[in-house]
Amino acid sequence: MAEEVILLNFWPSIFGMRTMIALEEKGVKYEYISEEDVIKNKSSLLLQMNPVHKKIPVLIHNGKAICESMIQVQYIDEVWSEKSPLLPSDPYQRAQALFWADFIDKKDQLCVCGRGTWRAKGEELEANNKEFIDILKILESELGDKPYFGGHKFGFVDIVLIGFYSWFPEYQKFGNFSIELECSKLIAWAERCLERESVTSLSQALKRVENRVC
Amino acid sequence: MAEEVILLNFWPSIFGMRTMIALEEKGVKYEYISEEDVIKNKSSLLLQMNPVHKKIPVLIHNGKAICESMIQVQYIDEVWSEKSPLLPSDPYQRAQALFWADFIDKKDQLCVCGRGTWRAKGEELEANNKEFIDILKILESELGDKPYFGGHKFGFVDIVLIGFYSWFPEYQKFGNFSIELECSKLIAWAERCLERESVTSLSQALKRVENRVC
Repeated sequence: MAEEVILLNFWPSIFGMRTMIALEEKGVKYEYISEEDVIKNKSSLLLQMNPVHKKIPVLIHNGKAICESMIQVQYIDEVWSEKSPLLPSDPYQRAQALFWADFIDKKDQLCVCGRGTWRAKGEELEANNKEFIDILKILESELGDKPYFGGHKFGFVDIVLIGFYSWFPEYQKFGNFSIELECSKLIAWAERCLERESVTSLSQALKRVENRVC
Repeated sequence: MAEEVILLNFWPSIFGMRTMIALEEKGVKYEYISEEDVIKNKSSLLLQMNPVHKKIPVLIHNGKAICESMIQVQYIDEVWSEKSPLLPSDPYQRAQALFWADFIDKKDQLCVCGRGTWRAKGEELEANNKEFIDILKILESELGDKPYFGGHKFGFVDIVLIGFYSWFPEYQKFGNFSIELECSKLIAWAERCLERESVTSLSQALKRVENRVC
């Protein structure tokens, strides 16, 4: 059966980037459908395919919708299992990868603190920046001296986190801090990730984010 | 190698119940260590085993800690895979199960609205109750006429959700509504789950919750 793979996405989405990187890692060809207005004018396809959350990204594989970026990455890893495994096969290592991915998305904390850099002011901004850097430092500590979160191979946690890097210039500008100074190892990890074709193929999206007026 | 399985828990935890049910389903013998004060006086074992979140439940398998209840249930399903599979093997069905489990825990919404029944007042309580019932109705709609969320077999989503049932009497009392009237199919599903030994073995914990002074 010919595979029909569609990604319904909105270009600056950190979450959509995860799914795109995973598809690229597996060499899966897909049709990209761009949602034009994810706030006020959601497409009928989006409402039909994700009736519960009504949010991008939605992966549609042979007519069936898979929602939530982390679940999509796991799904892609399971369906196209022959190439570039993303999650470790060992149950304990898998649990560790899922733990750190969950930490990144926990109550959207990294995402919320990131946005807080341009939404908060004064003391609130200071507290927000501290929390944001603290989260990055915990992640950096977990990375340690490994080239990637899972060890020597680019994988699940790298995919879950790398999209945030595209927003680092904005976070730094509005938060008035330097992530490089605070977390140099994390920056080195991000640059390592950017050497992968699956990640650089998103460079257009990343570039657009850099030029974005927030 | 003899298996050493320890669950570090605090008895009324809905999250700990998930891990206990999964262990029971698999017939895994484990040592239960009760955390006495999860707010002000966390044990050194808890701080050592879950240094990031410092929260129960923690599953300790042969000295290695696995944190977060949903990740624990997946881990248990993978390590003791011969008996009572909890997640479907088909990738799409797995993704669906993970989606609904994630929906239940999304931003802790069911948990937060549940607590809201005794924390909120007036209009805030009304809005809270509406959101709580809306979430249950979405879940009931997903259940449909199936005996369990995954179909004919008790599994992952059932385990993730059933612990909340032990708090239904409290939610109803403080929220002043009837879940039975609003979501009769969901109540029938919960009673079906309670026929399973893995769930009834938690009856002591459930009973304690019923008698709890909130």
